[in-house]
Amino acid sequence: MSAPERRYVISLGCPDRTGIVAAIANFLAEHGGWIIEAAYHADPDTGWFFTRQEVRADSLPFDVAELRARFAEVARELGEQTDWRVTDTAERKRAMILVSRAGHCLYDLLGRVASGELDVDVPAVIGNHPDLADITRAHGIPFHHVPFPRAGTDPDAKAAAFGEVRRLVEAHDPHAVVLARFMQVLPTELCEEWAGRAINIHHSFLPSFVGARPYHQAHARGVKLVGATCHYVTAELDAGPIIEQDVIRVDHADAVPDMVRKGRDIEKVVLARGLRWHLEDRVLVHGNRTVVFH
Amino acid sequence: MSAPERRYVISLGCPDRTGIVAAIANFLAEHGGWIIEAAYHADPDTGWFFTRQEVRADSLPFDVAELRARFAEVARELGEQTDWRVTDTAERKRAMILVSRAGHCLYDLLGRVASGELDVDVPAVIGNHPDLADITRAHGIPFHHVPFPRAGTDPDAKAAAFGEVRRLVEAHDPHAVVLARFMQVLPTELCEEWAGRAINIHHSFLPSFVGARPYHQAHARGVKLVGATCHYVTAELDAGPIIEQDVIRVDHADAVPDMVRKGRDIEKVVLARGLRWHLEDRVLVHGNRTVVFH
Amino acid sequence: MSAPERRYVISLGCPDRTGIVAAIANFLAEHGGWIIEAAYHADPDTGWFFTRQEVRADSLPFDVAELRARFAEVARELGEQTDWRVTDTAERKRAMILVSRAGHCLYDLLGRVASGELDVDVPAVIGNHPDLADITRAHGIPFHHVPFPRAGTDPDAKAAAFGEVRRLVEAHDPHAVVLARFMQVLPTELCEEWAGRAINIHHSFLPSFVGARPYHQAHARGVKLVGATCHYVTAELDAGPIIEQDVIRVDHADAVPDMVRKGRDIEKVVLARGLRWHLEDRVLVHGNRTVVFH
Amino acid sequence: MSAPERRYVISLGCPDRTGIVAAIANFLAEHGGWIIEAAYHADPDTGWFFTRQEVRADSLPFDVAELRARFAEVARELGEQTDWRVTDTAERKRAMILVSRAGHCLYDLLGRVASGELDVDVPAVIGNHPDLADITRAHGIPFHHVPFPRAGTDPDAKAAAFGEVRRLVEAHDPHAVVLARFMQVLPTELCEEWAGRAINIHHSFLPSFVGARPYHQAHARGVKLVGATCHYVTAELDAGPIIEQDVIRVDHADAVPDMVRKGRDIEKVVLARGLRWHLEDRVLVHGNRTVVFH
Repeated sequence: MSAPERRYVISLGCPDRTGIVAAIANFLAEHGGWIIEAAYHADPDTGWFFTRQEVRADSLPFDVAELRARFAEVARELGEQTDWRVTDTAERKRAMILVSRAGHCLYDLLGRVASGELDVDVPAVIGNHPDLADITRAHGIPFHHVPFPRAGTDPDAKAAAFGEVRRLVEAHDPHAVVLARFMQVLPTELCEEWAGRAINIHHSFLPSFVGARPYHQAHARGVKLVGATCHYVTAELDAGPIIEQDVIRVDHADAVPDMVRKGRDIEKVVLARGLRWHLEDRVLVHGNRTVVFH
Repeated sequence: MSAPERRYVISLGCPDRTGIVAAIANFLAEHGGWIIEAAYHADPDTGWFFTRQEVRADSLPFDVAELRARFAEVARELGEQTDWRVTDTAERKRAMILVSRAGHCLYDLLGRVASGELDVDVPAVIGNHPDLADITRAHGIPFHHVPFPRAGTDPDAKAAAFGEVRRLVEAHDPHAVVLARFMQVLPTELCEEWAGRAINIHHSFLPSFVGARPYHQAHARGVKLVGATCHYVTAELDAGPIIEQDVIRVDHADAVPDMVRKGRDIEKVVLARGLRWHLEDRVLVHGNRTVVFH
Repeated sequence: MSAPERRYVISLGCPDRTGIVAAIANFLAEHGGWIIEAAYHADPDTGWFFTRQEVRADSLPFDVAELRARFAEVARELGEQTDWRVTDTAERKRAMILVSRAGHCLYDLLGRVASGELDVDVPAVIGNHPDLADITRAHGIPFHHVPFPRAGTDPDAKAAAFGEVRRLVEAHDPHAVVLARFMQVLPTELCEEWAGRAINIHHSFLPSFVGARPYHQAHARGVKLVGATCHYVTAELDAGPIIEQDVIRVDHADAVPDMVRKGRDIEKVVLARGLRWHLEDRVLVHGNRTVVFH
Repeated sequence: MSAPERRYVISLGCPDRTGIVAAIANFLAEHGGWIIEAAYHADPDTGWFFTRQEVRADSLPFDVAELRARFAEVARELGEQTDWRVTDTAERKRAMILVSRAGHCLYDLLGRVASGELDVDVPAVIGNHPDLADITRAHGIPFHHVPFPRAGTDPDAKAAAFGEVRRLVEAHDPHAVVLARFMQVLPTELCEEWAGRAINIHHSFLPSFVGARPYHQAHARGVKLVGATCHYVTAELDAGPIIEQDVIRVDHADAVPDMVRKGRDIEKVVLARGLRWHLEDRVLVHGNRTVVFH
């Protein structure tokens, strides 16, 4: 759906029972709420229920703050474990992007932002190398170079560098921290700090080929497809909840550089889709799995 | 979803307005209805609203007949154009299959029925050639051979043959009439008689390559993918509402017989998916387009 | 394959007969030619044979001019219909890009050129609207705005505009003229002038949805996949030899703008692949079909 | 390619050097050999060269035995590591199929054999459960039930059962031993005995989800695609050279039984493709990787 009018987006997860749909639908109907898009999922394994609904803002007689206050009462009746959120499409979101040297994902995201396809502000890009400063600034976006020590050489310098990254990121309180081929493993405390907001693109079809040089691993194993995975970052490397994955065919004639080239096209679209769904509040996390209402 | 318990399936389309979700949800909640699966779609182009809901049968205090009677009142309030249906998963459905000489789709469907994957009875198979009698009977299903005259030779004989097909089909009042590579064009009156129940598999990615010998057409055009389309049959050839499509890659090294071979694998899965969704009441037709809640 | 060393690329099509492979292989072996990549195709329908071979330049004792002169003798023995070409990867190619307002394909191509993924010079971009001047110039590439009259209003002005486009293009004698969502239909004389060099991206899975507004056509027909086609331009609209196609899944929830958005990602990769193969002399045209050795 | 005429198929791997293509092409040209299909691959990582060529049998003045004898001399000149094979499409191949309870792969293969799509004799099917006896015999093929003890209970009985399987298989000296969802791990000695002939279908996109219950593992990890892998069996579980893989999209609404159902369609086509390529001598194994000339 791509209707341009202002909408409120309600997303909610709670233990399943009879009457949840009615409770929410009644609340909205009572105030004349016009539902543009609604999705539901009842998970038989976990016994949880999930929903996401888009309501035309002009169909309700109150603003988002009052909607939140009133919906809190509906949510309370659904039990104390209920996890919910109400957002307003008129409140523009912010995404910080972290990069290293490979520019294809950054270039792709900036193009989508510039064309209006991806409806988000990018207050700044942070790189542990300066290579992507020019392309970033050509889009009118500040670039911060935060050098990192070589792997394993200087833990204090590394902690200091992450401290600087954290400071830069938190200055903008972003809705998403995008690791667009950022080649540094986030420390546990940042994973926790940014839980549910830090999004990584890993250049393999996880759980295959965790960690470094996944295309080299894929080539050595002789797989016939290579892929990419967009996931939330957690303390365990490449093991967070998966938002989106896709693959592309390779064959024996593809050496590692060919796999890298073909894989880049998949990395770009998988990250762009995952980020879009995150920003539109389409991704609900429960345990280590996601419900994606797209 | 593949929960084995008995469910009632409500599907409905009506002009969109505020309160539809609430009206249905309230009705169900009032009687303790436990919604297992629910899907909604509001179409901005047509201004129509569509929904499909699965409710645990044992959560409601009445049988399917009473559910229908009571739901009719809910539907009436949604306006006179409202188009709705309530089915009971305990009422096993029937599909008649019409074939010619190519056996791959029939063989595939019979395998899915035999293994229980496709939950339907096949009362009989009708062929305009006798080639597939043995494989049909090996599955314990009656096979009727109804010979057709050669194309364009004898309209009366053709009308008589279709009369016989009609008689055989209607003896079983099936929920689906599956044209599994049946190479005869249905007369208009049968298209109307079986509207919304006659399902065809066409061996191209429609609307490309309508009519005869689509793989030859595809080869001549030099396309890089070939496909298949599962659609409802209407009076205009290969122009009915599309239920499902898929494609497979081909290249210059694929002669027509290779395209035929690769295409067969797509025809089989596209027909199987389309038929499954039809039988599970997941396909809502509006004009010449479908809403498929899968 | 992405070996960086200099190579000579031989591509050839001729009527099939015994001994063609041997004739070429002997010629190369005689001079110590080291074949890095070789592909063959014998087409049973047309009776033609096609091959493409990459030879390490440093394995042969002569330069590309002498290779051409000597290979001409080999080709002559294969018959007068033989169509062949020898290129040198050290001779950098040139691609002119023609655009209108939609920037996604241009942006994508410029990113691939800037990163070195697409090994080509872009001497200039021509637009019939000025919208994409900034992004072009940000990549250090000249942009020429050639205004066109509104469709059907002024044939003389249109002819003059095409004359200007032709002059600008031919000043650079490019190996490829890329219509990257250029929304003007080339006049027949330009189609002929640029035959085998003018490459278009059409935003549908041809031959479906020829001409204007293909996503609107696709939406109206209710297809379940949308696609894109990269093809050589010929005098008949959207009917030239197809180089590459791909598709992406859509469903009933996708309104036209959603199809447009999803389709863009396919347009970009299909055009990038097709252009890459063209520039690497991987595409051999015969009649209205292509042999693509990728 | 699906030309029906009799062909000799030459496949060869050897260390790469100048003149290999010429040596083979000259040998064939000298005797008037008409090459119908030819494919080459030079692997830069291993320094090996691979080729597969199909020659019209009636274009050569000798039978396959003499072709083998003469080609042996060509191969000898290419070095002592050279690994080659010449087969005759007129010599019909044999495939033994090993199954357990799940019938979808067996049913699919038998349908392809019965329709002539898969050009192979199936002398017998062996099952460690009797479930699939009826479907096998309905195709006129003997079924042998070889019961296995429950996992971990009786190593001697298990060894005896494998001894019986081995005896039954080797009675037919098959070109392929197909593990069509056979749920027993082959002992090392059988892996070695049947090296390059034993083909397994694993119901995951390897190397993800090795071993038991891969769909359960996939569900727990929350992947967005499930897949299947056809590979040669080696002593290390699910780690042999991969012939073919493919995937299908799943989402949060797919419980394990849905993944199983969707995955079956992928298992069937991946196994059928892999087996077809193996039987047509299109798969060349080098180390733990395959070259597949399809």
